[in-house]
Amino acid sequence: MTVAVAVEPVARNDAGIAVALPILAQRFGERFVKSEAARRQHGHTLTWLANQPPDAVVFAESTDDVVDIVRICADHRVPVIPFGAGSSLEGHVNAPGGGVSIDLGRMDQVVAVHDADLDCVVEPGITHQALNAYLRDTGMFFPIDPGAEASIGGMAATRASGTNAVRYGTMRDNVLNLTAVMPDGSVVKTGHRARKSSAGYDLTRLLIGSEGTLGVITELTLRLHGLPEAISGGVCPFKTIEDACQAVIMTMQTGIPVARIELLDALQIKACNAYSKLDLEETPTLFLEFHGTPSSVKEQSEAFGAIAADYGAGTFVWETTPEARSRLWKARHDVYWAVSGLRPGASGIATDACVPISRLAECVSETAADIEETGLVAPIVGHVGDGNFHVTMLVDVKDADEVRRAKAFVGRLNMRAIAMDGTCTGEHGIGQGKMKYLETEHGKGLDVMRAIKRAIDPDNIMNPGKIVTVP
Amino acid sequence: MTVAVAVEPVARNDAGIAVALPILAQRFGERFVKSEAARRQHGHTLTWLANQPPDAVVFAESTDDVVDIVRICADHRVPVIPFGAGSSLEGHVNAPGGGVSIDLGRMDQVVAVHDADLDCVVEPGITHQALNAYLRDTGMFFPIDPGAEASIGGMAATRASGTNAVRYGTMRDNVLNLTAVMPDGSVVKTGHRARKSSAGYDLTRLLIGSEGTLGVITELTLRLHGLPEAISGGVCPFKTIEDACQAVIMTMQTGIPVARIELLDALQIKACNAYSKLDLEETPTLFLEFHGTPSSVKEQSEAFGAIAADYGAGTFVWETTPEARSRLWKARHDVYWAVSGLRPGASGIATDACVPISRLAECVSETAADIEETGLVAPIVGHVGDGNFHVTMLVDVKDADEVRRAKAFVGRLNMRAIAMDGTCTGEHGIGQGKMKYLETEHGKGLDVMRAIKRAIDPDNIMNPGKIVTVP
Repeated sequence: MTVAVAVEPVARNDAGIAVALPILAQRFGERFVKSEAARRQHGHTLTWLANQPPDAVVFAESTDDVVDIVRICADHRVPVIPFGAGSSLEGHVNAPGGGVSIDLGRMDQVVAVHDADLDCVVEPGITHQALNAYLRDTGMFFPIDPGAEASIGGMAATRASGTNAVRYGTMRDNVLNLTAVMPDGSVVKTGHRARKSSAGYDLTRLLIGSEGTLGVITELTLRLHGLPEAISGGVCPFKTIEDACQAVIMTMQTGIPVARIELLDALQIKACNAYSKLDLEETPTLFLEFHGTPSSVKEQSEAFGAIAADYGAGTFVWETTPEARSRLWKARHDVYWAVSGLRPGASGIATDACVPISRLAECVSETAADIEETGLVAPIVGHVGDGNFHVTMLVDVKDADEVRRAKAFVGRLNMRAIAMDGTCTGEHGIGQGKMKYLETEHGKGLDVMRAIKRAIDPDNIMNPGKIVTVP
Repeated sequence: MTVAVAVEPVARNDAGIAVALPILAQRFGERFVKSEAARRQHGHTLTWLANQPPDAVVFAESTDDVVDIVRICADHRVPVIPFGAGSSLEGHVNAPGGGVSIDLGRMDQVVAVHDADLDCVVEPGITHQALNAYLRDTGMFFPIDPGAEASIGGMAATRASGTNAVRYGTMRDNVLNLTAVMPDGSVVKTGHRARKSSAGYDLTRLLIGSEGTLGVITELTLRLHGLPEAISGGVCPFKTIEDACQAVIMTMQTGIPVARIELLDALQIKACNAYSKLDLEETPTLFLEFHGTPSSVKEQSEAFGAIAADYGAGTFVWETTPEARSRLWKARHDVYWAVSGLRPGASGIATDACVPISRLAECVSETAADIEETGLVAPIVGHVGDGNFHVTMLVDVKDADEVRRAKAFVGRLNMRAIAMDGTCTGEHGIGQGKMKYLETEHGKGLDVMRAIKRAIDPDNIMNPGKIVTVP
C-alpha cells in the first residue's frame, strides 16, 4: 500500500538527528532501536499514505523515560512521534521529517481503580480491550470501543469514539484528566479526579484530539460506567436508508436511551452474509443495543419496535441473553473481516465523516450514489445515533486510475459532510490525510489552532506535519 | 459590600482609553454609556471583591457590533470585558485596568431550533430560564440550571452547571459549537452541528471556561434534551452527612440514572423551614429527582429508597405529580432566599469546591467542623452526585475580623478540596477571587495556560486580570 498521496512536507534536521540519536542510544540501550523493520513498523501502515519511517524507535517505560526522550530531542530540534498501537487511519504516526518514534506500548498498566468514584488511572499503552478485561470483576466498564485494538493514549490523542458514543460519549467525555510531557520536557497534569471543574482553561480537552502535536500523553484518568444490569440487542431491516435514518431520528427525539444504534448498508450486509454464513435480508439494517434494568430494556426495545414499524421496517428481532444477542450482532462484529472478502486482494481504505442527524439520510444516500457512479466497491457502516458513518473502500492500489477516482471520492465525501454543517471526521482524526479539509471546515479557527501550536511547540518538534502546519 | 480583597492589578492605559472612547461614542451613539450608575452596575456586585467599574459600557446588538468594539479597543490597547447577566461570583466582570464593558444582554434571541437534531442556536444574552420558556412547546429542554438568572454566554464562559449536571453534564458537554470574536477582531466559529468531531484542536472546549479572556462569545449552538415522559421527586433525611454521602456513592455505583441529587445540611434545612414555613426534620437531607418513563422513575425511586434504608435514612417520600413534587422540593428551590433569613443584614458570600465523590463526606464534614470553629454562619448545599458543594457565608462585611476569618476559611476550603484530588471550583469559575489557588491546583499546567493566553491575546486586552496573568 504505497500510493503516493500528497502530504505536508517537513524539513529534515539531519544535523540534529545525527547528534541526538547516539545520546538516546546511550541512555536507552536495547530499548533504542534503529532496525529497518522496527522503523517501518512504526511508520504508517493502515492507509494508502506512504510509509514514512522515523530514524529510530525508543520503547518508553515511564513518564520519566518520555521526559528524557523529549528533552534530548528538543535540545537538538528533532521530531518526536508518539506511537500507541499503530491503529490510526490518517498517517498519524508517520515521520515526514524523520525523528524519533516514542513507542508507549510497554506502558500498559492499570495504575489504580477507584470503585467509589467510578474512575481508573491507566498508562497510555493499554488497549481498551485489555482495560475491560482487567475491569471484568469490578462491575464497571470503559465504553469507548473503536474497531481496532487501539491504545487508550492513542484513542485520547485522536478523540476516538465507537459504537457506544451515542449513550456514553466519546474520549472527550470520558477522560477526567491526563498527564502529558510537553515539548520542553515539562510534565503537566491537566486536572484532578473531581467530576467537573471550572478552574481555568480546559487543558484536558485541548490535548484530547491534538494527535501528539502538543504533548505526549503518559497517563490518563478515565471515567468508568457501571455494567448495566440487563442488555437487550436487536436487528431491524429497512427498505431504504432513508427509512432507517428516519427511524433513528425518531428514536433519538423520543429520548430512548439507546446504547448502540448502527447502520449497515445492503452491500455490507451482503459481505457479512458471505463471511459469517448468515442469511440476513440484504437491505439497509439497524443493529441496536439497550442498557438498563430488565424492565427498562424491554420497554426500550418495544418502544423502538413501534417506531421501526412506523417506518415500514421488517421484523425487529431482539434478544436479552448474551448468546442470542451475540448471534444477532454477529454481522456487526464481523464487519471489518467481512469487508475484505468482497474483493480479495484489494486494500481496505477506511474513511469517516459526521453530519447532523437530520442530514444523515441525505448524506449517506448521496454518498452511496457517488460510490456507484465512481465505480467503487465500498460498503457503508454508521454509528448513526451520532450522525457518524464510515466508508471502507476496497481499492486496487496498483491501479492508478482507480486510486485517483477513490481519492476524488473521499474529497467529495468530506466536502459534502462539511457543507451539511458536519465535519470531515467524526472519530478518525486529521493526521496527514485530512489536513486539506481543515481550512474549509474551520476557516479562521485554523489561525487560532496555529497560534496554539506555535505557542506550545515553538520549534515544531511534536509530531510535525499533522493537523496544522506552522510556517 | 466593598471589602478590600487583594486582586491582580492591571495597569491602566489612560492614553488609549482617552482615544478609544470618543470613537466608540461616535460609532454607537446612545448605546455607548458612561454614567456612573451604568459603569458601577457593570462592575462586580455579587461578591466581597471591590467593585471596579469599566470606563464605559457599550450595548452590543450583533456579532458585527462586537467586532467593531473589539477592533477599536484593540487598536488602542484598551481592555474589553464581556458582560452577560452580571451573576458571576468571582469578580469576572470587574475592570481592574478600566476599559470597556460589552453588554451582551440585548443579544437574547433564539436564532434557530432544530427539532430533528435536538439542538438550537442562540445569542449569548438569553438566560437559561428564557430559553426554556421559549422551548416549552417543543418537547425539549436545556438542562443546565445555575441558581441565578444567568445568561447562556456567561454560563459557557464560566463552564457553569447546576443541579442537573449529574445526569446531563455541564456547559462543557452541552455546547456543540460557538462563535467568538477574537482579540484581533476576527470571528471564529469553533465547529459545526455534528454531534462529534475529531477535526483538530477542540476550540469549543478551550473557549468554554475561558471567562472572556480569549474571546467574546456571540453565538452558541446548544444540545437539547427531550423532556422526560415522567419525573418523580423525593426527599430523604439522614442522621449524618456521612450516611447521606455514602448513599449517594452507592446510588451512583448502582447506575441509577438520577437526574438530580442535592444535599442540604441541617443548618440549610433550618433556614428553609423558617423561610418556607416547612417542618422538615433539621438533619442532613437529600433531594432527588428521577427522569424516565413512568415505570422507570418508579423503579429508580424504589431502588434509591432501598439504598437509603441501608444507610439508616428516615422515610424517603417521593411523588410524581408536578404539584406534589414542587411541594417536596420547595425547600431546595428556596435555598437562595432562605439563607439570608439566617442572619438579616449580613451579606451572603457564595463559594464552591468539588472533590471526587469518595472524598465528599470527609470534605463536607471537615468543612462543617471548620465553619463551626471559625464561628461562621454558613450553610452547605451540594450537587453531591458530582462531588460539588457550595458554602454560603453570611458575613458582616463591616466587621474586619470576621471578614478576615471568612477569607481564611475560604482559603482552607479550597486547599482542602485540591488536596483531596479535587478542584477549587466546580462551577463558579476563577475570575479574580480564585486566581491564588491555580498554582497549587495546576502546577506547570498554569504555564501552558499562560502560553495560550499570550498567543491568542498578545496585548492582554481580553478581560485582563482574570484566570491567569501574563507578565
